[in-house]
Amino acid sequence: MRPLIMITNDDGVGAKGLQALVSVARNIGDVVVMAPSKNSSGLAHSFTGGQPLRVNIISEEKDCKVYSCEGTPVDCVKICEQFFCERRPNIVLSGINHGSNASINVLYSGTMGAVMEASANGLNAIGFSLLDHDEDADFTLSLPFVRIIIEAVLKKSLPDGVSLNVNIPVVSDGVIKGIRLCRESRACWKDSYVKRIDPQGRPYYWLTGRFECNDNGDDTDQGALENGYVSVVPTTTDYTAYKEFDIIRNDYGELF
Amino acid sequence: MRPLIMITNDDGVGAKGLQALVSVARNIGDVVVMAPSKNSSGLAHSFTGGQPLRVNIISEEKDCKVYSCEGTPVDCVKICEQFFCERRPNIVLSGINHGSNASINVLYSGTMGAVMEASANGLNAIGFSLLDHDEDADFTLSLPFVRIIIEAVLKKSLPDGVSLNVNIPVVSDGVIKGIRLCRESRACWKDSYVKRIDPQGRPYYWLTGRFECNDNGDDTDQGALENGYVSVVPTTTDYTAYKEFDIIRNDYGELF
Repeated sequence: MRPLIMITNDDGVGAKGLQALVSVARNIGDVVVMAPSKNSSGLAHSFTGGQPLRVNIISEEKDCKVYSCEGTPVDCVKICEQFFCERRPNIVLSGINHGSNASINVLYSGTMGAVMEASANGLNAIGFSLLDHDEDADFTLSLPFVRIIIEAVLKKSLPDGVSLNVNIPVVSDGVIKGIRLCRESRACWKDSYVKRIDPQGRPYYWLTGRFECNDNGDDTDQGALENGYVSVVPTTTDYTAYKEFDIIRNDYGELF
Repeated sequence: MRPLIMITNDDGVGAKGLQALVSVARNIGDVVVMAPSKNSSGLAHSFTGGQPLRVNIISEEKDCKVYSCEGTPVDCVKICEQFFCERRPNIVLSGINHGSNASINVLYSGTMGAVMEASANGLNAIGFSLLDHDEDADFTLSLPFVRIIIEAVLKKSLPDGVSLNVNIPVVSDGVIKGIRLCRESRACWKDSYVKRIDPQGRPYYWLTGRFECNDNGDDTDQGALENGYVSVVPTTTDYTAYKEFDIIRNDYGELF
């Protein structure tokens, strides 16, 4: 039996990156797409609790069914598994996102919110992102890498609660050098709101920001991408700060 | 100079848990509250990008200023720091949430989204949650623990990118046994949508769910809470699966 591949994203059901991912997945297995009906970037792991969801049928071919959901990427994963998958998916894919989800961007990412939701529910899951925000971005160079990573995960599976955050560089010479296993690099967004005054004299605030990263060594996703490699970060739903656990235990010993 | 304490939450500016947290914080330092104008539970790390934000002035006493923002908890942290703090806050607090943010709930939590946003920006930050969803929940027993944890962090600070996820049990005998340093326990929500048909014949879906956790040993937050202890999980903005990193490297060696 062909593997069942569930696909979602956060750019919305009409995004070019979603179509690119579906084109790869159809060569590997049967596909069910459940994507947000509108752009849902920056929605992270948010879900819809207090109001009902709607689902729209886009197309229902035998080996590729496409639906949209008027909810978040996490909602898409939840509702798709219960009502729109004939069997348990072998893998959940999200993307290909238009823009980076490397480094600190993983916190805000709806693409990776969906992936981590699937992973929390015990499913293999991969998020794919291309470092190009343009809605007409060219995904051609990404596709061979997307395919071999999907096939590897279908073959080997991932540890419980662990998913892959895959980012793909834009390369001026047309050559992606390879794939690197990385850690998430430490960075932050230096946010700066633009304050304006509306015609009634009340202020309103527009978010702008600048990505700031000084942690781009060869072991980081940011470093891999800057050097023309695809970055793969194994990503966990366990947010415990294990690396700093003993520091906390020592510093705060009298509390416990 | 008294410490400057920024406070937010996800239950909204009118929540009883927020008032409880402010009551403790005012005894320790100067307070600036920027809380969502409406209930923003389940918004995780989402932020507002494509539209402007509004801020409402609730009250402006010398040592305690209260604002609300028509955005997410993460928006509250971002905008408060830029426009409503006279100096860099010494600490950011979020809560006290009405309901658990232990275990897998941290993924969905707006309370902890705000905390991790502050931590990503280099600030000390703590999220507090009481295991009682009732909007009239009684926070009395929580307050001494909230106070000593805030004071400890103000004294010792936290490692870069690490915050604290503090959950407080509801105890039938009125005695909380102490505080435990824990890891996040592995669990998931078994989601089950209720499908209904509207008067026009179209389906809609209501989310329901059941928390399922089989990982409640003494080293876990879930275990601590079930045994009447306050749980403290050091939480990181680095989602890299370090524990499983070598497994991935071995299993997927041919990719890299």
